[in-house]
Amino acid sequence: MTGPEIERLIQLLAKLPGLGPRSARRAALDLLKRRDAVLKPLAAALTAAAETIVTCRICGNLDSVDPCSICADPKREAGSICVIEDVADLWAIERSGAFKGRYHVLGGVLSALDGIGPDDLSIARLVERAASAEVREVILATNATVEGQTTAHYVTDRLAGTNVQVTRLAHGLPVGGELDYLDDGTLTAALRARRAV
Amino acid sequence: MTGPEIERLIQLLAKLPGLGPRSARRAALDLLKRRDAVLKPLAAALTAAAETIVTCRICGNLDSVDPCSICADPKREAGSICVIEDVADLWAIERSGAFKGRYHVLGGVLSALDGIGPDDLSIARLVERAASAEVREVILATNATVEGQTTAHYVTDRLAGTNVQVTRLAHGLPVGGELDYLDDGTLTAALRARRAV
Repeated sequence: MTGPEIERLIQLLAKLPGLGPRSARRAALDLLKRRDAVLKPLAAALTAAAETIVTCRICGNLDSVDPCSICADPKREAGSICVIEDVADLWAIERSGAFKGRYHVLGGVLSALDGIGPDDLSIARLVERAASAEVREVILATNATVEGQTTAHYVTDRLAGTNVQVTRLAHGLPVGGELDYLDDGTLTAALRARRAV
Repeated sequence: MTGPEIERLIQLLAKLPGLGPRSARRAALDLLKRRDAVLKPLAAALTAAAETIVTCRICGNLDSVDPCSICADPKREAGSICVIEDVADLWAIERSGAFKGRYHVLGGVLSALDGIGPDDLSIARLVERAASAEVREVILATNATVEGQTTAHYVTDRLAGTNVQVTRLAHGLPVGGELDYLDDGTLTAALRARRAV
């Protein structure tokens, strides 16, 4: 009814996270209406991304150069490695602008349920990097979920043989957060980690 | 930080309806992770759509052929034209499988607020089509909104000079709908349009 080209476009758009079949139809129609403003540039951007974006062999970041621009940047502190689950977490920390070291993307978390063991994550490579003389600190910034914390514990154990200091992100009140809306776990963590004013 | 190629991809994805900046980032990352399964096929589908999809010169539908496959189909009743606001509405009616006639896409609704007058919609072309001897009925299937109904009234007036019968979609209970959750307007319309069992 809508022609095979449009059907195919809708099917592929529906595979994106956040778009269901209905919103994929809306998106396809919107694209066809804004051909020069969105459709063609998006096609070009996708093609460019497919051709140029590679995984950094050092940290696992996605970039158009390998090693990635963060690993290659001499202004970033090589002594500090921030361990995250996913490239999305790297982006989040970069947006905050609060970290000037380098990263290590694990590529997921340990999960018995999903059959993901240590060998499926980039842990051996992290231990290798941490063994380098210039690395002084490894900051574990996995998510505050059961799997994220389990993975953090496992990584800590694996790093025991190296000379790096292993730290983890603080738990506590989100900035702008209201006590009344916080879960008990966060409140407990914030109380335990209270600091003198 | 994420490289200009990824930034550009995120910016363009964020222009799709239903995707904000945050979900556009998620979508971009997901695309880069599923390169062969989604990213490359999507780039190809977008390029194909940009090259092949045209607006039907008769009804305003989007298709890879002009006239579109519905206008060109001899099995579709040429005597009945269903008038809709947008191609998305055409798709919705086609999915129902309840209509075997042809369509006319207005391309919007009359709106004083948005400065959309009769000349901005494909109304003159509809009057021209309705004047053809083979057309017997024009079904007004604009949305049940104020603008949609205003547009339907205006189109009815414009069709007064032709010999076609002008009808509109029934208002009433949605199938599966519960009385308790219906708005008063729909309930009133359903009561007024009640039929003998």
